[in-house]
This record gives sequence, C-alpha cells and structure tokens, in this order.
Amino acid sequence: MATFLAVGTPALAGTDPLPSWNEGRTKQAIVEFVQKTTDKASPTYVPPAERIVTFDNDGTLWPSHPIYTQLAFALDRIKTLAPRHPEWKNQQPFKAVLDNDMKTLAASGEKGMLELVMASHAGMSTAEFEKIVTDWFKTARHPRFNKRYTELAYQPMLELLRYLRANGFKTYIVSGGGIEFMRPITETVYGVPPEQVIGSSIKTKYEYTDGKPVLMRLPKINFIDDKTGKPVGINMFIGKRPVAAFGNSDGDRQMLEWTDAGKGARLMMLVFHDDARREYAYGPAQGLPNTRFGTFTQSLMNEARKKGWVVISMKDDWKVIFPFEK
Amino acid sequence: MATFLAVGTPALAGTDPLPSWNEGRTKQAIVEFVQKTTDKASPTYVPPAERIVTFDNDGTLWPSHPIYTQLAFALDRIKTLAPRHPEWKNQQPFKAVLDNDMKTLAASGEKGMLELVMASHAGMSTAEFEKIVTDWFKTARHPRFNKRYTELAYQPMLELLRYLRANGFKTYIVSGGGIEFMRPITETVYGVPPEQVIGSSIKTKYEYTDGKPVLMRLPKINFIDDKTGKPVGINMFIGKRPVAAFGNSDGDRQMLEWTDAGKGARLMMLVFHDDARREYAYGPAQGLPNTRFGTFTQSLMNEARKKGWVVISMKDDWKVIFPFEK
Repeated sequence: MATFLAVGTPALAGTDPLPSWNEGRTKQAIVEFVQKTTDKASPTYVPPAERIVTFDNDGTLWPSHPIYTQLAFALDRIKTLAPRHPEWKNQQPFKAVLDNDMKTLAASGEKGMLELVMASHAGMSTAEFEKIVTDWFKTARHPRFNKRYTELAYQPMLELLRYLRANGFKTYIVSGGGIEFMRPITETVYGVPPEQVIGSSIKTKYEYTDGKPVLMRLPKINFIDDKTGKPVGINMFIGKRPVAAFGNSDGDRQMLEWTDAGKGARLMMLVFHDDARREYAYGPAQGLPNTRFGTFTQSLMNEARKKGWVVISMKDDWKVIFPFEK
Repeated sequence: MATFLAVGTPALAGTDPLPSWNEGRTKQAIVEFVQKTTDKASPTYVPPAERIVTFDNDGTLWPSHPIYTQLAFALDRIKTLAPRHPEWKNQQPFKAVLDNDMKTLAASGEKGMLELVMASHAGMSTAEFEKIVTDWFKTARHPRFNKRYTELAYQPMLELLRYLRANGFKTYIVSGGGIEFMRPITETVYGVPPEQVIGSSIKTKYEYTDGKPVLMRLPKINFIDDKTGKPVGINMFIGKRPVAAFGNSDGDRQMLEWTDAGKGARLMMLVFHDDARREYAYGPAQGLPNTRFGTFTQSLMNEARKKGWVVISMKDDWKVIFPFEK
C-alpha cells in the first residue's frame, strides 16, 4: 500500500533510498529519472498509471551462475524422480544428470534441456507444482554462497525495487525463467506479486473430474519469454510500454529497445557482471569469459553505449552485492 | 487511488452503493459477500492482495446482441478495406459481408469467422490496430439503441465494479473477446486498466527496422480465452484464483467452477438475459430462444442452482439497464 500512499509526496525524504549503491553516474541516473518522472512540474512527468517498470530476473535481480536457479531445480528434481524411472540410468540426458556429468549434459544442447524441463516441470497440476517449487526453495542452497537461493537477491536491486515502488512505479518481473517457478517466491523475495510476474510457460489444460477442477501442466511449450519474446510478453500481459527496463544480457536487448522507443523520459539499465571476487565475471563483452547463462556480448555493450543505456558495474557501482553482507 | 485508500474503511457508508439493483436476494448476496470478506473480524475475511474478481465482458458488462460488438467491428472493417480487395466481391465469407447477407455469413461457420477476424485484425502493428479500434468506437453505434457501444455498459454492473474496487477488490475482465480490441476502452468504460484485461489473442512478432521496434499482428491464433481457456488465462495472467466471478453464458462455466473450487467465501454470478423489452431475452435455458452470441443452456442453469451460483434476472434485479436511462 505504501506504493500508492506515497504518490506525490517526496518518498523517503532525508534518507538515502539506495544506500548500497556507490555515489556516481549510475546512481545519479536512477535518482534523476525518478525525480523528472514524478515531479508534476517536470516536462517529462509520468502519471502513476503509466509508471510501469520491468526487471529481468536471472542475472539482474539474483545470480544466474554457476547455472540458472531453475536448472538447479530441474537437476535436483530429476534426481528425486529417478527411483521411479529406472530407464534414466541408460538414457541421455538423464544419465548425465544422475552421473553429475555436466559436460555430457551441456552437449545435449537445447533438445536435452527441453527434455529435462518437461520431465521435471510437467505431468502434475499447477497446485502440485507450486508445492514442489516452494518446498525446493526451502532447502536448496547455492553451491558457492551456501545460502538459500531466496537469500541471494541483489541488495542494490532490492533497494531499487522499493525506491521505485515508493515513487508510484509498478514493478514487473519479465524473465526467460518459468512463470510458475518464480511466482511462489517473488512476493516474499522482491515484493512483486504473482500478477506482476511474466515468464516462459508450458501449456496447461483444464480438467474437471469428480467435481474438482484442476489445471494440468502439459509437456508442451506455450511461450518463451526471452529476446523478442519479452516485448511480446510485455504487450500481452501489461498492454502498456514500460518507462524503464532493467536487464543483464542479450536476452534483454529487445525489452530495452522496446522500452527505449517510447516517448518521454526513459531509463534502460544493464547489470554487467564484472566482479569475480564478490559474485561472477562474464561477458564475452570487455574480454570477460563467455557463458551459457546470461551472455552479455560486445554487440550489446556497443548498442548500450550508442543509445545511452546505463551499464551497471557490479564491481564499481555496488557497495554490497547480497543482503547477508550488510 | 480510491480503491486503496478505502481499504479497511466502510466504503460509501450511509449511501447505497448499488442504487440500480432492486432490493432482494441477488443484491443481498453481493453486499453480504463484500461484508464477510472485508470485515477483519469475519471468519471468511480475505486479505486485500487476494481480493481478485473476474468479469466476463460480452453479455456480462455490456450487450452481446444482436451480434458481438467485436463482430460488428470486423464487419465494418471488412467494408472499409473492401476497395483494396476487389477479389472479395466474389469470395466468401467476404461477399456475404459486403452484401449484408447474414444468413450466408452464419453458414460460413467458425472457419468463415476466423477468416474475417484475420482479415480485419491482423497485418498491422499493435499501435496501428489500437488506433483503428479507438477510432471505430468513436463513431460506431449500436443498431437498436443508437448509442455508441461504449455508452452501453450495464449501469448495475458499473456500480458493482465500483463497489468492489471501493472495498479493495481488484477487478479483472476475462473475456473471449480480443484483448487488444478491449484494452483501448476498458479503462474509460469500466475503470479497468489494460493490465487487468485478459482475452483472446492472435500472435504478435517483434520487428526491428530502421531502429524502430514494432509488434506486428500475425494472422495466427495465439490463445482462445473462452470456456476451459478462462481458468487457463486467469492462472497465466494473474497466478491467483479469483474469489468472485461474473459471467452470463456457457463460455463462463469453467471460470465459475474454477473460482468456486477455492477455499473460503466465494461469489459466482450469472447475468440471465430475460428482458426482451429493455434489452434481449435468450437462453435456451427456461425456454427462451437460442442464440449464437452468449448461449445460456439449461445445463448451465441446473449447475448454477445445484451449486448455489446466483442467477441475475435482468428483468427483476435491475432497476435500469443502461446509464442513459437514469
């Protein structure tokens, strides 16, 4: 409710709403954007109903390394289900998962990934899947930080989400990740309710048996909310163009282009992972190592520079990375 | 903003929030539902974040006769585009449209309808389509009431939408109609913003030419938000189960079942069109004439009675039908 009650009043006046951001051009760009879009006297004032901001999730709000959180879930799930599937012992890509053979798994490519996703994400009701996901997040831990995944939301981004909401912005997650994988935890972790989460999905089917309706999750792709899919998803779910968008990889490029193309004040930002010490460093932009989990190409870096999109350096712009560092 | 500021305070105390509803069991069911879900002392209290209510559009919030408003738009659009398509003069179902031959048009069935929809709704950008729709609503008039379609929202339902919002409920439209056909007018007509409109859709494709991104509307069905599609759409877009749902036809049956199956207080209502004098009368339930535009079967009527869903009689429950009658 604070979101709405705070509209029109100087939010958090006198205190720094972004204490985990180092002073500098990046932080300044955020504060200036908020000021010039919420001050009624500003020529670029944006009415509250149009204050739509979209955030990618993996690599933007929390880590996407060493592998996507959802892939870690899928691998754990395959292992949990393995006793019911003795055939997996001799069947790729399942064998690779059970053998912890990441090289063979990677070689299985997109087709292999799809098989893993369907085996771990389909074949149950939406309610059952929600429980499976919720239970997994209670116990699973990140292999490097040894924290629950839900404890790894980036502290500066949590402050940014709160700061935007305190100024009347409606914060959406627009992720290539699964919509029903994120929704059980986005409210608690990010303060983003289920109806403001957009993501990839498989098809569901309404079944009505014994007077009890269920939505069954089918092993069929419904929508891929990545790359060109992000503007499509934003238009489908929100029906408004965002005034600000936050990403971290080539998968977010079209979301930022789509946001940028609107009239009036805009803010496009990309988290660049250049901090191997505190988190991870990957590109391949700026000569950093390439990755399968959140590629940031030099071509994206060039587009960002050309268009004035703000590139956030984790190393230079963030005082702390995780809440537990405080 | 009134929605949120009013949470927790007796909304509109001392005045009747539903003046166009006749006193009786139907109106009482609405008021009692709101009281028992918003009173913190009530055992069936519902926290504001869970106060999700869904409304069908055609036949529930405005007329669906003599034909769906969107079909009237499609027919007008075909006529507007005809000079550019000389071949339509000899090609069904287009010939039937140009000849105002409704019998042949009806005989073209679903396949014919789909051809009309694609010819009138696809092949332009989302921005162009929004302008076409907005312009059409400015001038098109309902053939019987000789009012703009946007003036024909049912007055009792407008009061219901406002009453629910004043009590902290988030009102969604969940319609078989096209999502991008509704969104340009739902805020003005119903107070429902684009992000709370769920509907059928065709596929869109992101294109980036000359540095300008557009979403092009393709002649391919993406999603049909009707019958079993309604719970699927609700789950996809909102990720929460509604506590109340309002419909008027067999297309809304699964939405009401899905809503009903949740725990705690629920309200399911169906508008029954039994008022030929002031609006229309059709079923085929209760022996009223059958229709292609909002079928209400006896089977649905029986399910409603069995489950305690409230059937709204337009004739008996509504003091006035349209705002212009006041």
